[in-house]
Amino acid sequence: MISTKESYLDRLSKKRVNLYINGERIENFMEHPNIKPIIDSIGLTYELANKDEYKDLMVAHSQFIDEPINRFLHIYTEKDDLIKRLKLARLMSSKLSTCNYRCVGCDILNALYATTYDMDESLSTNYHERLKNYIKYVQSNDLSVSGALTDVKGDRSKKPHQQDDMYLKLVEKRDDGIVVRGAKICQSGALVVDETVVMPTIALKEEGRAYAVSFAIESGNENVIYVLQNNPYEAKKRETPDWESGNPYGDRGTFLVIFNDVFVPWDRVFMCEEYQFAGLLVSNFSNIHRYVGSGCKAGFVDAIVGASKLMAEYNGTEKASHVVDKIVDSIKGIEACYACGLAAGYESVQTKSGVWLPDTLYANISKVLGLPALNKAIVNLADIAGGICVTCPSKRDLENPEIGKYIEHYLGGKEGVPTESRLKLVKFVEYWVSGPHLGGAIHGGGSPVTPDIFIKRSVNVDEKKKLVKELLGL
Amino acid sequence: MISTKESYLDRLSKKRVNLYINGERIENFMEHPNIKPIIDSIGLTYELANKDEYKDLMVAHSQFIDEPINRFLHIYTEKDDLIKRLKLARLMSSKLSTCNYRCVGCDILNALYATTYDMDESLSTNYHERLKNYIKYVQSNDLSVSGALTDVKGDRSKKPHQQDDMYLKLVEKRDDGIVVRGAKICQSGALVVDETVVMPTIALKEEGRAYAVSFAIESGNENVIYVLQNNPYEAKKRETPDWESGNPYGDRGTFLVIFNDVFVPWDRVFMCEEYQFAGLLVSNFSNIHRYVGSGCKAGFVDAIVGASKLMAEYNGTEKASHVVDKIVDSIKGIEACYACGLAAGYESVQTKSGVWLPDTLYANISKVLGLPALNKAIVNLADIAGGICVTCPSKRDLENPEIGKYIEHYLGGKEGVPTESRLKLVKFVEYWVSGPHLGGAIHGGGSPVTPDIFIKRSVNVDEKKKLVKELLGL
Amino acid sequence: MISTKESYLDRLSKKRVNLYINGERIENFMEHPNIKPIIDSIGLTYELANKDEYKDLMVAHSQFIDEPINRFLHIYTEKDDLIKRLKLARLMSSKLSTCNYRCVGCDILNALYATTYDMDESLSTNYHERLKNYIKYVQSNDLSVSGALTDVKGDRSKKPHQQDDMYLKLVEKRDDGIVVRGAKICQSGALVVDETVVMPTIALKEEGRAYAVSFAIESGNENVIYVLQNNPYEAKKRETPDWESGNPYGDRGTFLVIFNDVFVPWDRVFMCEEYQFAGLLVSNFSNIHRYVGSGCKAGFVDAIVGASKLMAEYNGTEKASHVVDKIVDSIKGIEACYACGLAAGYESVQTKSGVWLPDTLYANISKVLGLPALNKAIVNLADIAGGICVTCPSKRDLENPEIGKYIEHYLGGKEGVPTESRLKLVKFVEYWVSGPHLGGAIHGGGSPVTPDIFIKRSVNVDEKKKLVKELLGL
Amino acid sequence: MISTKESYLDRLSKKRVNLYINGERIENFMEHPNIKPIIDSIGLTYELANKDEYKDLMVAHSQFIDEPINRFLHIYTEKDDLIKRLKLARLMSSKLSTCNYRCVGCDILNALYATTYDMDESLSTNYHERLKNYIKYVQSNDLSVSGALTDVKGDRSKKPHQQDDMYLKLVEKRDDGIVVRGAKICQSGALVVDETVVMPTIALKEEGRAYAVSFAIESGNENVIYVLQNNPYEAKKRETPDWESGNPYGDRGTFLVIFNDVFVPWDRVFMCEEYQFAGLLVSNFSNIHRYVGSGCKAGFVDAIVGASKLMAEYNGTEKASHVVDKIVDSIKGIEACYACGLAAGYESVQTKSGVWLPDTLYANISKVLGLPALNKAIVNLADIAGGICVTCPSKRDLENPEIGKYIEHYLGGKEGVPTESRLKLVKFVEYWVSGPHLGGAIHGGGSPVTPDIFIKRSVNVDEKKKLVKELLGL
Repeated sequence: MISTKESYLDRLSKKRVNLYINGERIENFMEHPNIKPIIDSIGLTYELANKDEYKDLMVAHSQFIDEPINRFLHIYTEKDDLIKRLKLARLMSSKLSTCNYRCVGCDILNALYATTYDMDESLSTNYHERLKNYIKYVQSNDLSVSGALTDVKGDRSKKPHQQDDMYLKLVEKRDDGIVVRGAKICQSGALVVDETVVMPTIALKEEGRAYAVSFAIESGNENVIYVLQNNPYEAKKRETPDWESGNPYGDRGTFLVIFNDVFVPWDRVFMCEEYQFAGLLVSNFSNIHRYVGSGCKAGFVDAIVGASKLMAEYNGTEKASHVVDKIVDSIKGIEACYACGLAAGYESVQTKSGVWLPDTLYANISKVLGLPALNKAIVNLADIAGGICVTCPSKRDLENPEIGKYIEHYLGGKEGVPTESRLKLVKFVEYWVSGPHLGGAIHGGGSPVTPDIFIKRSVNVDEKKKLVKELLGL
Repeated sequence: MISTKESYLDRLSKKRVNLYINGERIENFMEHPNIKPIIDSIGLTYELANKDEYKDLMVAHSQFIDEPINRFLHIYTEKDDLIKRLKLARLMSSKLSTCNYRCVGCDILNALYATTYDMDESLSTNYHERLKNYIKYVQSNDLSVSGALTDVKGDRSKKPHQQDDMYLKLVEKRDDGIVVRGAKICQSGALVVDETVVMPTIALKEEGRAYAVSFAIESGNENVIYVLQNNPYEAKKRETPDWESGNPYGDRGTFLVIFNDVFVPWDRVFMCEEYQFAGLLVSNFSNIHRYVGSGCKAGFVDAIVGASKLMAEYNGTEKASHVVDKIVDSIKGIEACYACGLAAGYESVQTKSGVWLPDTLYANISKVLGLPALNKAIVNLADIAGGICVTCPSKRDLENPEIGKYIEHYLGGKEGVPTESRLKLVKFVEYWVSGPHLGGAIHGGGSPVTPDIFIKRSVNVDEKKKLVKELLGL
Repeated sequence: MISTKESYLDRLSKKRVNLYINGERIENFMEHPNIKPIIDSIGLTYELANKDEYKDLMVAHSQFIDEPINRFLHIYTEKDDLIKRLKLARLMSSKLSTCNYRCVGCDILNALYATTYDMDESLSTNYHERLKNYIKYVQSNDLSVSGALTDVKGDRSKKPHQQDDMYLKLVEKRDDGIVVRGAKICQSGALVVDETVVMPTIALKEEGRAYAVSFAIESGNENVIYVLQNNPYEAKKRETPDWESGNPYGDRGTFLVIFNDVFVPWDRVFMCEEYQFAGLLVSNFSNIHRYVGSGCKAGFVDAIVGASKLMAEYNGTEKASHVVDKIVDSIKGIEACYACGLAAGYESVQTKSGVWLPDTLYANISKVLGLPALNKAIVNLADIAGGICVTCPSKRDLENPEIGKYIEHYLGGKEGVPTESRLKLVKFVEYWVSGPHLGGAIHGGGSPVTPDIFIKRSVNVDEKKKLVKELLGL
Repeated sequence: MISTKESYLDRLSKKRVNLYINGERIENFMEHPNIKPIIDSIGLTYELANKDEYKDLMVAHSQFIDEPINRFLHIYTEKDDLIKRLKLARLMSSKLSTCNYRCVGCDILNALYATTYDMDESLSTNYHERLKNYIKYVQSNDLSVSGALTDVKGDRSKKPHQQDDMYLKLVEKRDDGIVVRGAKICQSGALVVDETVVMPTIALKEEGRAYAVSFAIESGNENVIYVLQNNPYEAKKRETPDWESGNPYGDRGTFLVIFNDVFVPWDRVFMCEEYQFAGLLVSNFSNIHRYVGSGCKAGFVDAIVGASKLMAEYNGTEKASHVVDKIVDSIKGIEACYACGLAAGYESVQTKSGVWLPDTLYANISKVLGLPALNKAIVNLADIAGGICVTCPSKRDLENPEIGKYIEHYLGGKEGVPTESRLKLVKFVEYWVSGPHLGGAIHGGGSPVTPDIFIKRSVNVDEKKKLVKELLGL
């Protein structure tokens, strides 16, 4: 089913949630200046699905319920699904300049789809069917689904079982379901979606059996506590929830999500103690998510490049050769990253479950290229914008009756450009240069050290050695 | 004279200033959460000058008043002064992790010292003597001096005289002094110093005669309006002026400074229409400031590297080889930058005035290396810290009676590390990763395109051509 | 038709050619130590086409003569042809570690196929049909075809018509054909193929009408003079045409080809004064060739990575973490380049002629990434191999009765590795480190400045600007 | 004493040496095309010492024999000696575009000077005096001294004592001296100097006692065998010892030097089994040599930049902005490296022996920057030169009566530039692009992994940690 932003808002408005922001319990969360932008971002995923020009990317046809569905709920059993998934990520990021909050959920569903199939085959469990039913449920109701992966980790030199209650774990197995405890951090959008699918964050051995749990909860579960991040943009949004804060859709909103002995009925459990498959699930997820990440970052840089050009026009520098070169430089960096994504998508492999997974090598290389590409694009943007990108007075200064005229005059750009327009753009630049997105690009899809491990694994160097032995007769 | 932070605060407390922050006129500025950190930063330049262990760098002996003075007021007529100046910059940045607000003033005084000498010699003016008297005045009273350079520029494709009242300019020449109008932007610390020395921002031709003005004002002049920048850290500081904001000394505080027909008596005027020397003054200043900038950034990275190591210890990852490698990587990047600074200092040249100026080539190369070095160090720090560096809940969440215990438990690191310590450090990391310093590193000391111009000018490529012709007999 | 290396050699042996090597006219060229490796390289393109395991890539089905043909003669009217073309390039380079000498010819045929179609449509000429006949001819006889593009250029600040006889040009138009004069340089394999297809090297305006010529000649035409390059590897091959020279297939052999008033009959002329289409032809060719170049370089790096691993094993360092990291680093660099190639192929567009052309943006970005990737892989290889990679004594030293035993002992590696094997590999490393391939990677497919121009053209920055305007309401 | 090239040649002509080149024993080595360029390079170190304009750098005043001496024989007991040493290295490389063959010898003498002092102090040996006498001897006779460090290493996973006779070792201690056996590789200039000083290549433990030997031999000792390297440039030089080979001073000539039970009298022995000091000696040497290496590479890039400019002029492209940018890029890279050298020199520390040693941190960072800087400069040069830099016909082709006129015409550049001049320059470019110098830059002064180890050791990260703890009150 393709529903609307309104239905989504309606469902959301009925939730009673345990939400804390900067030390305060928040009751009426929907209009909170830190939460509303997240809701609007997710809202756009519903809105665009209803616009003809975006349907090709936004809407897929479900193989399970034989209906059009939002592509964020789709299982990629056609190769082309994977390519469209990538382009969807780019589209959303280019429109939002922030997270759409539905990627992780979508990617976990697909990773689970492939992994539960193999699990059932190997262990004679029946998770795959259960998962399919869950997928049908969210598709039929057009629910937004986020995903939860990253555990708080305490002492990183210790394994999950060597620490008490740090990684999320199974604390009780009951007839009707399971009880889990722990906390997930960096959870983009976690609160304001309909559903959250949870999975382990690392490969596990037998000793880690209790940590091998995957399941879905309705967001706003009474035993779950959500604590919003508090980087400087949250403070700014609370103070001036208008263009002063740079991006109407806000910075990426994440939560610390505390699972306080949460009960999950069996029909929502997709892994329970099958530690042998935690690694595969993580690896399937990582491949998909790094792959999708190249589209996400490309969409960001689309906006950054657009802002670079517009800023140059406002400043009267758009013809300077070093400005043109910097814009091309930003494009080169990110398109190389995105090309790796495309390559991973086109060179994908079909798993036994029918799901297509992107090529590991190229998906991981796209992650490697993504961080420097985004970083470079941000630096180029700041370079073109000038020092004002972090030193600009505020919207309220512009509106102040005593000094507004000075701001108006002195912070104007090229003739014909309204000073307000220029300052809105400056604040958008500030959002990129001193916002949390660089940090996000570093750790999103896994820390920088992880793709190297996957790359090492995915290339057969000995085969290349054979080439040389043959050539030289060794 | 070496005075104290108390005298400085005392002088400051007597100022009546036109200050606006986020649209509001501020009366009691000294305790304002956005202003106090700036005052504390400058205060430290007084405090350290009184501590024995820092005297070698903090204190110089004035050749004019034959007394010990704060090195930020010193004129470099000994070669070694220049080296100590660089090390002073590094020291201050490493202690503050933000601006000390006195570099630009010091660098302008030295640039003026060299330039007015040449000006007088060539044009039979007597600016040099006047400047010397001014220097004696600030030295004798141990005044803090900031410098003002960067004009708002409006349409960058137009020259100053092609736009109305954008670049700061002379509007009247009177018997007792001059009247100036315009605005300077990105003015670090401008309000809370004792004095500000002003100079042009670019080389000028005859048509730009009116823009060739340099002079000193007491900060807080009644015709001057100060408008504070408003990046997200200002908002955060206003909301939570404690460790939540990452750095007790705040982010770099800059102002838009509006000169609303300001009168300056002749004994404070150091250039007035001598457009022929604007270029030389800018170039002298740039060399010194880019040189000093390598020390500044090295001090920042000292703190970033320290934070990287401490974070790794808190997380239990300090022995992971990729963590060690990243720390070494940060060091390599910044020490290469700092080495260029040292080379510029040791290979300095003495001007006719007696002032030593750093070598142009190496000073400019240090600027070229500084941005990627700081950028890399920040990325490495964020990498080591983990995603929490932009997604951490707040101090107030930790203190909240309902959820504080969860934050305490789940956001702890290695055993024995208090969670509060870890979170303080996380907020310090956040300050670097999503704060305004990357933007500052891009434009501080001039936009990235400018050093290339100086480098091109300072190398004799034809001499190198001769080497090849000789070798090959061409 | 799929023929054999033997038929190719047979045809070659009948040619009478004007060939000069290091100042001497060469009569019996087929066994010349500088020419034989080129012949063997081309020979392998025939041999592999006859081996089952390579047929998928080596052999295509001609849409014109309805027969299996060598893929180097194929026109890409199916999208998948383009992908296989890329993989073919990688395969050949990985087997040869040098040029296969047939890429340019193949790429020009395809570029001409697309361009002559458009030309005919616009100018009512009939080049397309003529070209098709020519293609059928080379396909039916399984001829090897090289391509000639790069003119000697004299004074690069002048256009072709501003210099006398520098760029290749039409000097006479006759009833039966045309006469051309000029010289092409950097012509890989030119002499020892069956045919050479010639095209202009740059876009032209009306004044350059005479330079707008494209045609095919049989190699060894009596009015054509071939002068072999003479880089150090040619000297070494002449002295020691065995493993001492590193690669049995030699370094890339190119020729200066002088067209001394060469007559070409009309049925071999594919452009004659249609200057308006020179630019399109060059651009079509460049896209294809840069695209294919990513496969070529990936094949080279396959061998380089293989050599890195083998060398590490011979030296006993294969487990050192920095060695492993360097191998992964080489892989990351080149696979990013190759991924751009794949993306260009999968995102290709079909021209009116039916030929699929790779996406301009990604084809050009692959060229941008190719040079640093190859360079890095070479440096990593040399790093792993040790200083001996440029300081090794010779095969003959090893064979010398007096000192052979010392070489045998002292230049041995890990126990069990024959010293001769190690030295063969060292000489292969030397071939990469101090051979001409880095130079080739810089200029192959156009100088480094050219892809930037294509990238700039192929991205719609204003569309990205619109994204920001929409987002911010500007 | 300052003597002449003639005396040097005279001494050389009296040597009877065991020299093998490409499998042949060479009797009359002085005119051999592979050896003469090395002799000429060393010759220039004598010639320049006699020219007034170079005396400041070439000549030092010996503190031991109270006479002017060649700076390559000087011990740096004044800080300024170290700076002049660096500038000397740059001067020689810029003149020669290859090795001067005297750096390693000079650097070992200084490293031994510092180390033997500490050794004697700690172990009551008397090596320091002995060394001083040796130094007086070479200074008094103005002998050229090379240095030998790099052992052949066999299986790198094994230590010296785990392999039989691979690293050079003591085989007998006699009353009158010692007997050593082993082989050193990559020995620049080894044969054609007067003397060679030998030292261990790595730090050693007690088990490696026999490998802790340092001593001096007269070059041409009857039990020493020299085998010349045989990279392609050696072959080319043998075939065409004129400008065809690019650099009149040749590529860097190195030898495998086999010590076949060589006797060394005690007065030439500077370390014998004092394994505890092998590490210090290596580390002292490495610091000096990496330091000097930054000057060496800077001199190379001076020539490369000169060639870039000249080539651009010959081609008519000297005004193209991308050409100008590339030249500036080459300068930026290498001057950053050289600046690290300067910083290391100016921030040097005096050892107890009186010798000044460069700062470890900056010396090692200069090595880190040197390789990419040289690499980049070479790539920029090749880029500017065009593909002809590896595909050019030969001098003999230009001289051939049949085709010379075509070469003359078609390979000409801008009007007024003789084609021969252009081709000489092209061959010089080829020398850089496909010669052995990139390989040399990788391993000269130690493999790329080694400086990282020194950098890690030389920085006190915990002190930086303290800064952060203080700032945040942790």
